[in-house]
Amino acid sequence: MQNSEIYLESLITATPQEGRELAIKLARKSIAAIQTDAEKRKALRANYAEDTAQLIASAQIIAVEFQTIAMANNYWKS
Amino acid sequence: MQNSEIYLESLITATPQEGRELAIKLARKSIAAIQTDAEKRKALRANYAEDTAQLIASAQIIAVEFQTIAMANNYWKS
Amino acid sequence: MQNSEIYLESLITATPQEGRELAIKLARKSIAAIQTDAEKRKALRANYAEDTAQLIASAQIIAVEFQTIAMANNYWKS
Amino acid sequence: MQNSEIYLESLITATPQEGRELAIKLARKSIAAIQTDAEKRKALRANYAEDTAQLIASAQIIAVEFQTIAMANNYWKS
Amino acid sequence: MQNSEIYLESLITATPQEGRELAIKLARKSIAAIQTDAEKRKALRANYAEDTAQLIASAQIIAVEFQTIAMANNYWKS
Amino acid sequence: MQNSEIYLESLITATPQEGRELAIKLARKSIAAIQTDAEKRKALRANYAEDTAQLIASAQIIAVEFQTIAMANNYWKS
Repeated sequence: MQNSEIYLESLITATPQEGRELAIKLARKSIAAIQTDAEKRKALRANYAEDTAQLIASAQIIAVEFQTIAMANNYWKS
Repeated sequence: MQNSEIYLESLITATPQEGRELAIKLARKSIAAIQTDAEKRKALRANYAEDTAQLIASAQIIAVEFQTIAMANNYWKS
Repeated sequence: MQNSEIYLESLITATPQEGRELAIKLARKSIAAIQTDAEKRKALRANYAEDTAQLIASAQIIAVEFQTIAMANNYWKS
Repeated sequence: MQNSEIYLESLITATPQEGRELAIKLARKSIAAIQTDAEKRKALRANYAEDTAQLIASAQIIAVEFQTIAMANNYWKS
Repeated sequence: MQNSEIYLESLITATPQEGRELAIKLARKSIAAIQTDAEKRKALRANYAEDTAQLIASAQIIAVEFQTIAMANNYWKS
Repeated sequence: MQNSEIYLESLITATPQEGRELAIKLARKSIAAIQTDAEKRKALRANYAEDTAQLIASAQIIAVEFQTIAMANNYWKS
Protein backbone atom coordinates (compact mmCIF):
# COMPACT_ATOMS: atom_id res chain seq x y z
CA MET A 1 0.00 0.00 0.00
CA GLN A 2 3.03 2.27 -0.28
CA ASN A 3 2.88 5.25 -2.57
CA SER A 4 5.46 4.82 -5.32
CA GLU A 5 6.11 8.57 -5.30
CA ILE A 6 9.45 9.78 -3.97
CA TYR A 7 8.43 12.79 -1.91
CA LEU A 8 11.33 12.93 0.49
CA GLU A 9 14.70 13.18 -1.21
CA SER A 10 16.41 14.85 1.73
CA LEU A 11 15.71 16.30 5.14
CA ILE A 12 18.14 19.14 4.43
CA THR A 13 16.52 22.45 3.54
CA ALA A 14 18.08 25.81 2.76
CA THR A 15 16.09 27.75 5.35
CA PRO A 16 14.01 27.16 8.48
CA GLN A 17 10.89 28.27 6.61
CA GLU A 18 11.46 25.53 4.04
CA GLY A 19 11.88 23.19 6.96
CA ARG A 20 8.40 24.16 8.15
CA GLU A 21 7.01 23.57 4.68
CA LEU A 22 8.67 20.18 4.50
CA ALA A 23 7.17 19.25 7.86
CA ILE A 24 3.70 20.17 6.61
CA LYS A 25 4.28 18.17 3.44
CA LEU A 26 5.41 15.09 5.38
CA ALA A 27 2.32 15.25 7.59
CA ARG A 28 0.11 15.36 4.49
CA LYS A 29 1.99 12.52 2.81
CA SER A 30 1.51 10.33 5.89
CA ILE A 31 -2.25 10.79 5.64
CA ALA A 32 -2.06 10.06 1.90
CA ALA A 33 -0.16 6.85 2.62
CA ILE A 34 -3.04 5.56 4.76
CA GLN A 35 -5.91 6.94 2.67
CA THR A 36 -4.54 6.54 -0.83
CA ASP A 37 -7.71 7.67 -2.62
CA ALA A 38 -7.18 11.33 -3.58
CA GLU A 39 -10.86 11.96 -4.17
CA LYS A 40 -11.70 10.66 -0.72
CA ARG A 41 -9.00 12.80 0.84
CA LYS A 42 -10.39 15.89 -0.90
CA ALA A 43 -13.86 15.09 0.42
CA LEU A 44 -12.48 14.45 3.92
CA ARG A 45 -10.46 17.68 4.04
CA ALA A 46 -13.64 19.64 4.67
CA ASN A 47 -14.18 17.49 7.80
CA TYR A 48 -11.03 18.51 9.57
CA ALA A 49 -10.37 21.97 8.16
CA GLU A 50 -13.19 23.41 10.26
CA ASP A 51 -12.84 21.14 13.28
CA THR A 52 -10.54 22.89 15.71
CA ALA A 53 -9.68 19.71 17.62
CA GLN A 54 -8.44 18.14 14.42
CA LEU A 55 -6.60 21.29 13.32
CA ILE A 56 -4.81 21.20 16.64
CA ALA A 57 -4.00 17.51 16.25
CA SER A 58 -2.61 18.23 12.78
CA ALA A 59 -0.38 20.97 14.19
CA GLN A 60 0.97 18.43 16.66
CA ILE A 61 2.16 16.19 13.82
CA ILE A 62 3.81 19.17 12.14
CA ALA A 63 5.60 19.96 15.40
CA VAL A 64 7.10 16.48 15.60
CA GLU A 65 8.04 16.29 11.92
CA PHE A 66 9.60 19.75 12.18
CA GLN A 67 11.62 18.70 15.20
CA THR A 68 13.17 15.90 13.17
CA ILE A 69 13.91 18.25 10.27
CA ALA A 70 15.36 20.89 12.58
CA MET A 71 17.67 18.32 14.15
CA ALA A 72 18.73 17.14 10.68
CA ASN A 73 19.65 20.69 9.73
CA ASN A 74 21.41 21.41 13.03
CA TYR A 75 18.79 24.11 13.53
CA TRP A 76 20.13 26.02 10.52
CA LYS A 77 22.81 27.51 12.72
CA SER A 78 25.53 29.04 10.57
CA MET B 1 -1.49 25.30 -0.25
CA GLN B 2 1.61 26.73 1.40
CA ASN B 3 1.46 30.20 2.86
CA SER B 4 3.87 32.41 0.96
CA GLU B 5 4.67 34.31 4.15
CA ILE B 6 8.12 33.84 5.67
CA TYR B 7 7.31 33.56 9.36
CA LEU B 8 10.33 31.59 10.53
CA GLU B 9 13.62 33.26 9.68
CA SER B 10 15.54 31.60 12.49
CA LEU B 11 15.05 29.35 15.50
CA ILE B 12 17.56 31.43 17.44
CA THR B 13 16.04 33.85 19.96
CA ALA B 14 17.70 36.23 22.39
CA THR B 15 15.90 34.94 25.47
CA PRO B 16 13.95 31.88 26.65
CA GLN B 17 10.79 34.01 26.87
CA GLU B 18 11.13 34.87 23.17
CA GLY B 19 11.60 31.16 22.57
CA ARG B 20 8.21 30.57 24.22
CA GLU B 21 6.65 33.24 22.06
CA LEU B 22 8.15 31.74 18.93
CA ALA B 23 6.78 28.31 19.90
CA ILE B 24 3.29 29.80 20.29
CA LYS B 25 3.64 31.54 16.93
CA LEU B 26 4.73 28.35 15.18
CA ALA B 27 1.75 26.45 16.61
CA ARG B 28 -0.58 29.15 15.29
CA LYS B 29 1.10 29.21 11.87
CA SER B 30 0.66 25.43 11.54
CA ILE B 31 -3.07 25.81 12.05
CA ALA B 32 -3.09 28.67 9.53
CA ALA B 33 -1.30 26.48 7.00
CA ILE B 34 -4.12 23.93 7.12
CA GLN B 35 -7.02 26.37 7.45
CA THR B 36 -5.84 29.22 5.27
CA ASP B 37 -9.03 31.28 5.54
CA ALA B 38 -8.40 33.96 8.18
CA GLU B 39 -12.09 34.70 8.64
CA LYS B 40 -12.81 31.05 9.28
CA ARG B 41 -9.96 30.84 11.77
CA LYS B 42 -11.29 33.86 13.63
CA ALA B 43 -14.73 32.26 13.82
CA LEU B 44 -13.22 28.94 14.94
CA ARG B 45 -11.07 30.49 17.67
CA ALA B 46 -14.13 30.86 19.87
CA ASN B 47 -14.61 27.07 19.62
CA TYR B 48 -11.34 26.11 21.18
CA ALA B 49 -10.60 29.09 23.43
CA GLU B 50 -13.27 27.95 25.89
CA ASP B 51 -12.86 24.20 25.43
CA THR B 52 -10.39 23.02 28.02
CA ALA B 53 -9.58 19.79 26.19
CA GLN B 54 -8.54 21.80 23.15
CA LEU B 55 -6.64 24.36 25.20
CA ILE B 56 -4.70 21.48 26.69
CA ALA B 57 -4.06 19.99 23.25
CA SER B 58 -2.79 23.38 22.06
CA ALA B 59 -0.41 23.56 25.01
CA GLN B 60 0.95 20.18 23.97
CA ILE B 61 1.92 21.55 20.54
CA ILE B 62 3.61 24.52 22.17
CA ALA B 63 5.59 22.14 24.39
CA VAL B 64 6.95 20.24 21.39
CA GLU B 65 7.70 23.35 19.33
CA PHE B 66 9.42 24.89 22.36
CA GLN B 67 11.52 21.78 22.85
CA THR B 68 12.88 22.18 19.32
CA ILE B 69 13.57 25.87 19.84
CA ALA B 70 15.24 25.23 23.21
CA MET B 71 17.51 22.63 21.63
CA ALA B 72 18.35 25.06 18.82
CA ASN B 73 19.38 27.67 21.37
CA ASN B 74 21.32 25.21 23.52
CA TYR B 75 18.84 26.09 26.25
CA TRP B 76 20.12 29.67 26.33
CA LYS B 77 22.96 28.56 28.55
CA SER B 78 25.64 31.22 28.62
CA MET C 1 -1.96 38.25 21.57
CA GLN C 2 1.25 37.59 23.49
CA ASN C 3 1.27 38.09 27.23
CA SER C 4 3.70 40.84 28.03
CA GLU C 5 4.72 39.05 31.22
CA ILE C 6 8.21 37.56 31.36
CA TYR C 7 7.55 34.20 33.01
CA LEU C 8 10.55 32.28 31.72
CA GLU C 9 13.87 33.90 32.54
CA SER C 10 15.84 30.67 32.40
CA LEU C 11 15.40 26.94 31.99
CA ILE C 12 18.09 26.36 34.62
CA THR C 13 16.79 25.35 38.05
CA ALA C 14 18.66 24.49 41.24
CA THR C 15 16.94 21.13 41.75
CA PRO C 16 14.93 18.53 39.83
CA GLN C 17 11.88 19.37 41.95
CA GLU C 18 12.08 22.99 40.83
CA GLY C 19 12.36 21.65 37.30
CA ARG C 20 9.02 19.87 37.80
CA GLU C 21 7.48 23.06 39.13
CA LEU C 22 8.77 25.03 36.17
CA ALA C 23 7.30 22.46 33.79
CA ILE C 24 3.91 22.81 35.47
CA LYS C 25 4.17 26.59 35.26
CA LEU C 26 5.04 26.51 31.57
CA ALA C 27 2.06 24.28 30.82
CA ARG C 28 -0.21 26.74 32.62
CA LYS C 29 1.31 29.73 30.86
CA SER C 30 0.70 28.11 27.47
CA ILE C 31 -2.98 27.81 28.27
CA ALA C 32 -3.00 31.41 29.48
CA ALA C 33 -1.41 32.53 26.22
CA ILE C 34 -4.34 31.09 24.25
CA GLN C 35 -7.12 31.98 26.67
CA THR C 36 -5.92 35.31 27.98
CA ASP C 37 -9.01 36.07 30.07
CA ALA C 38 -8.15 35.13 33.67
CA GLU C 39 -11.77 35.04 34.76
CA LYS C 40 -12.62 32.63 31.97
CA ARG C 41 -9.66 30.43 32.87
CA LYS C 42 -10.79 30.31 36.49
CA ALA C 43 -14.27 29.27 35.39
CA LEU C 44 -12.85 26.68 33.00
CA ARG C 45 -10.51 25.13 35.57
CA ALA C 46 -13.45 23.36 37.19
CA ASN C 47 -14.10 21.66 33.82
CA TYR C 48 -10.79 19.89 33.59
CA ALA C 49 -9.85 19.46 37.25
CA GLU C 50 -12.44 16.70 37.63
CA ASP C 51 -12.20 15.23 34.15
CA THR C 52 -9.66 12.45 34.29
CA ALA C 53 -9.07 12.44 30.53
CA GLN C 54 -8.10 16.09 30.68
CA LEU C 55 -6.00 15.64 33.80
CA ILE C 56 -4.11 12.93 31.96
CA ALA C 57 -3.69 15.18 28.91
CA SER C 58 -2.34 17.93 31.17
CA ALA C 59 0.19 15.53 32.67
CA GLN C 60 1.36 14.74 29.14
CA ILE C 61 2.21 18.42 28.55
CA ILE C 62 4.10 18.53 31.84
CA ALA C 63 6.07 15.46 30.78
CA VAL C 64 7.22 17.12 27.55
CA GLU C 65 8.00 20.47 29.16
CA PHE C 66 9.92 18.66 31.90
CA GLN C 67 11.91 16.72 29.34
CA THR C 68 13.10 19.99 27.84
CA ILE C 69 13.99 21.41 31.25
CA ALA C 70 15.78 18.22 32.28
CA MET C 71 17.87 18.31 29.10
CA ALA C 72 18.67 21.98 29.74
CA ASN C 73 19.93 21.11 33.22
CA ASN C 74 21.85 18.05 32.06
CA TYR C 75 19.54 16.07 34.34
CA TRP C 76 20.96 17.83 37.39
CA LYS C 77 23.85 15.42 37.39
CA SER C 78 26.65 16.74 39.57
CA MET D 1 -0.94 25.78 43.68
CA GLN D 2 2.33 23.88 43.88
CA ASN D 3 2.57 20.90 46.18
CA SER D 4 5.13 21.65 48.84
CA GLU D 5 6.23 18.01 48.85
CA ILE D 6 9.65 17.21 47.41
CA TYR D 7 8.94 14.08 45.37
CA LEU D 8 11.78 14.29 42.89
CA GLU D 9 15.20 14.45 44.52
CA SER D 10 17.03 12.99 41.56
CA LEU D 11 16.42 11.47 38.14
CA ILE D 12 19.19 8.96 38.79
CA THR D 13 18.02 5.46 39.72
CA ALA D 14 19.99 2.32 40.47
CA THR D 15 18.17 0.16 37.91
CA PRO D 16 15.96 0.47 34.83
CA GLN D 17 13.05 -1.01 36.79
CA GLU D 18 13.35 1.79 39.34
CA GLY D 19 13.41 4.18 36.40
CA ARG D 20 10.03 2.77 35.32
CA GLU D 21 8.68 3.21 38.83
CA LEU D 22 9.92 6.77 38.97
CA ALA D 23 8.23 7.52 35.65
CA ILE D 24 4.94 6.18 36.98
CA LYS D 25 5.36 8.25 40.13
CA LEU D 26 6.05 11.43 38.17
CA ALA D 27 2.95 10.89 36.04
CA ARG D 28 0.85 10.53 39.20
CA LYS D 29 2.42 13.58 40.82
CA SER D 30 1.59 15.68 37.76
CA ILE D 31 -2.06 14.77 38.10
CA ALA D 32 -1.88 15.53 41.83
CA ALA D 33 -0.39 18.95 41.07
CA ILE D 34 -3.46 19.87 39.02
CA GLN D 35 -6.10 18.16 41.16
CA THR D 36 -4.69 18.73 44.62
CA ASP D 37 -7.65 17.22 46.51
CA ALA D 38 -6.66 13.66 47.43
CA GLU D 39 -10.23 12.59 48.12
CA LYS D 40 -11.31 13.79 44.70
CA ARG D 41 -8.40 11.96 43.07
CA LYS D 42 -9.36 8.75 44.83
CA ALA D 43 -12.93 9.11 43.59
CA LEU D 44 -11.74 9.91 40.07
CA ARG D 45 -9.34 6.95 39.88
CA ALA D 46 -12.29 4.61 39.32
CA ASN D 47 -13.16 6.67 36.22
CA TYR D 48 -9.94 6.04 34.37
CA ALA D 49 -8.84 2.68 35.77
CA GLU D 50 -11.53 0.92 33.74
CA ASP D 51 -11.52 3.21 30.72
CA THR D 52 -9.09 1.75 28.23
CA ALA D 53 -8.67 5.00 26.31
CA GLN D 54 -7.54 6.72 29.48
CA LEU D 55 -5.32 3.82 30.53
CA ILE D 56 -3.63 4.11 27.15
CA ALA D 57 -3.27 7.88 27.54
CA SER D 58 -1.71 7.34 30.97
CA ALA D 59 0.79 4.88 29.51
CA GLN D 60 1.76 7.56 27.00
CA ILE D 61 2.74 9.93 29.84
CA ILE D 62 4.78 7.17 31.46
CA ALA D 63 6.58 6.60 28.16
CA VAL D 64 7.64 10.24 27.91
CA GLU D 65 8.63 10.54 31.57
CA PHE D 66 10.60 7.30 31.26
CA GLN D 67 12.39 8.57 28.18
CA THR D 68 13.65 11.54 30.20
CA ILE D 69 14.75 9.31 33.07
CA ALA D 70 16.45 6.86 30.72
CA MET D 71 18.39 9.69 29.09
CA ALA D 72 19.38 10.99 32.54
CA ASN D 73 20.77 7.58 33.46
CA ASN D 74 22.50 7.09 30.11
CA TYR D 75 20.22 4.08 29.68
CA TRP D 76 21.85 2.35 32.65
CA LYS D 77 24.62 1.19 30.38
CA SER D 78 27.58 0.03 32.43
CA MET E 1 1.05 -12.48 22.11
CA GLN E 2 4.12 -11.44 20.12
CA ASN E 3 4.15 -11.91 16.39
CA SER E 4 6.87 -14.40 15.51
CA GLU E 5 7.60 -12.47 12.32
CA ILE E 6 10.88 -10.57 12.10
CA TYR E 7 9.80 -7.32 10.48
CA LEU E 8 12.56 -5.06 11.68
CA GLU E 9 16.02 -6.26 10.77
CA SER E 10 17.59 -2.83 10.87
CA LEU E 11 16.72 0.83 11.29
CA ILE E 12 19.24 1.73 8.60
CA THR E 13 17.74 2.57 5.22
CA ALA E 14 19.40 3.63 1.97
CA THR E 15 17.30 6.77 1.52
CA PRO E 16 15.03 9.10 3.49
CA GLN E 17 12.06 7.90 1.44
CA GLU E 18 12.73 4.34 2.55
CA GLY E 19 12.93 5.70 6.07
CA ARG E 20 9.40 7.06 5.65
CA GLU E 21 8.21 3.72 4.37
CA LEU E 22 9.80 1.92 7.29
CA ALA E 23 8.09 4.31 9.72
CA ILE E 24 4.73 3.55 8.12
CA LYS E 25 5.46 -0.16 8.30
CA LEU E 26 6.40 0.01 11.99
CA ALA E 27 3.19 1.87 12.80
CA ARG E 28 1.18 -0.85 11.05
CA LYS E 29 3.10 -3.64 12.76
CA SER E 30 2.40 -2.10 16.17
CA ILE E 31 -1.33 -2.24 15.47
CA ALA E 32 -0.95 -5.82 14.25
CA ALA E 33 0.85 -6.74 17.48
CA ILE E 34 -2.17 -5.66 19.52
CA GLN E 35 -4.90 -6.88 17.17
CA THR E 36 -3.32 -10.06 15.82
CA ASP E 37 -6.36 -11.17 13.81
CA ALA E 38 -5.70 -10.13 10.18
CA GLU E 39 -9.34 -10.47 9.17
CA LYS E 40 -10.41 -8.19 11.98
CA ARG E 41 -7.75 -5.65 11.03
CA LYS E 42 -8.97 -5.66 7.43
CA ALA E 43 -12.53 -5.05 8.62
CA LEU E 44 -11.37 -2.29 10.97
CA ARG E 45 -9.30 -0.49 8.33
CA ALA E 46 -12.49 0.91 6.80
CA ASN E 47 -13.24 2.52 10.20
CA TYR E 48 -10.18 4.68 10.34
CA ALA E 49 -9.38 5.22 6.68
CA GLU E 50 -12.29 7.63 6.37
CA ASP E 51 -12.15 9.13 9.85
CA THR E 52 -9.98 12.20 9.66
CA ALA E 53 -9.28 12.29 13.40
CA GLN E 54 -7.89 8.78 13.23
CA LEU E 55 -5.93 9.49 10.04
CA ILE E 56 -4.34 12.39 11.86
CA ALA E 57 -3.57 10.22 14.89
CA SER E 58 -1.96 7.65 12.59
CA ALA E 59 0.21 10.33 11.04
CA GLN E 60 1.38 11.24 14.53
CA ILE E 61 2.69 7.71 15.10
CA ILE E 62 4.49 7.82 11.76
CA ALA E 63 6.11 11.11 12.78
CA VAL E 64 7.52 9.60 15.97
CA GLU E 65 8.67 6.36 14.33
CA PHE E 66 10.28 8.39 11.54
CA GLN E 67 12.09 10.56 14.06
CA THR E 68 13.72 7.45 15.52
CA ILE E 69 14.66 6.15 12.10
CA ALA E 70 16.02 9.54 11.02
CA MET E 71 18.19 9.69 14.14
CA ALA E 72 19.42 6.16 13.47
CA ASN E 73 20.48 7.16 9.97
CA ASN E 74 22.05 10.44 11.08
CA TYR E 75 19.46 12.11 8.87
CA TRP E 76 21.01 10.53 5.77
CA LYS E 77 23.59 13.28 5.71
CA SER E 78 26.46 12.32 3.44
CA MET F 1 0.59 0.43 43.95
CA GLN F 2 3.78 -0.63 42.20
CA ASN F 3 4.00 -4.12 40.75
CA SER F 4 6.73 -5.97 42.60
CA GLU F 5 7.67 -7.76 39.39
CA ILE F 6 10.99 -6.86 37.78
CA TYR F 7 10.06 -6.67 34.11
CA LEU F 8 12.79 -4.38 32.89
CA GLU F 9 16.29 -5.63 33.63
CA SER F 10 17.91 -3.76 30.78
CA LEU F 11 17.08 -1.59 27.79
CA ILE F 12 19.77 -3.35 25.77
CA THR F 13 18.48 -5.94 23.29
CA ALA F 14 20.36 -8.13 20.84
CA THR F 15 18.34 -7.03 17.80
CA PRO F 16 16.01 -4.25 16.67
CA GLN F 17 13.13 -6.74 16.54
CA GLU F 18 13.67 -7.54 20.21
CA GLY F 19 13.69 -3.80 20.79
CA ARG F 20 10.21 -3.63 19.24
CA GLU F 21 9.04 -6.48 21.45
CA LEU F 22 10.43 -4.78 24.54
CA ALA F 23 8.62 -1.56 23.61
CA ILE F 24 5.35 -3.45 23.32
CA LYS F 25 5.99 -5.14 26.65
CA LEU F 26 6.72 -1.82 28.38
CA ALA F 27 3.51 -0.31 27.03
CA ARG F 28 1.55 -3.26 28.41
CA LYS F 29 3.32 -3.12 31.77
CA SER F 30 2.43 0.58 32.11
CA ILE F 31 -1.24 -0.25 31.72
CA ALA F 32 -0.84 -3.09 34.22
CA ALA F 33 0.73 -0.69 36.71
CA ILE F 34 -2.38 1.48 36.67
CA GLN F 35 -4.98 -1.27 36.41
CA THR F 36 -3.39 -3.97 38.55
CA ASP F 37 -6.32 -6.39 38.36
CA ALA F 38 -5.44 -8.96 35.68
CA GLU F 39 -9.02 -10.16 35.32
CA LYS F 40 -10.20 -6.61 34.70
CA ARG F 41 -7.45 -6.06 32.15
CA LYS F 42 -8.46 -9.22 30.31
CA ALA F 43 -12.06 -8.04 30.21
CA LEU F 44 -11.00 -4.57 29.05
CA ARG F 45 -8.75 -5.84 26.26
CA ALA F 46 -11.81 -6.58 24.14
CA ASN F 47 -12.73 -2.88 24.41
CA TYR F 48 -9.63 -1.55 22.75
CA ALA F 49 -8.63 -4.43 20.48
CA GLU F 50 -11.46 -3.60 18.09
CA ASP F 51 -11.49 0.16 18.56
CA THR F 52 -9.24 1.63 15.91
CA ALA F 53 -8.77 4.93 17.73
CA GLN F 54 -7.44 3.07 20.74
CA LEU F 55 -5.29 0.76 18.64
CA ILE F 56 -3.75 3.84 17.10
CA ALA F 57 -3.21 5.40 20.53
CA SER F 58 -1.52 2.20 21.68
CA ALA F 59 0.81 2.29 18.67
CA GLN F 60 1.78 5.82 19.69
CA ILE F 61 2.99 4.57 23.10
CA ILE F 62 4.98 1.83 21.42
CA ALA F 63 6.60 4.43 19.16
CA VAL F 64 7.79 6.48 22.12
CA GLU F 65 8.97 3.49 24.16
CA PHE F 66 10.78 2.16 21.08
CA GLN F 67 12.49 5.50 20.54
CA THR F 68 13.96 5.28 24.04
CA ILE F 69 15.08 1.69 23.49
CA ALA F 70 16.57 2.52 20.09
CA MET F 71 18.55 5.39 21.61
CA ALA F 72 19.76 3.08 24.40
CA ASN F 73 21.04 0.60 21.83
CA ASN F 74 22.60 3.28 19.63
CA TYR F 75 20.17 2.09 16.95
CA TRP F 76 21.87 -1.32 16.85
CA LYS F 77 24.50 0.12 14.56
CA SER F 78 27.48 -2.19 14.41
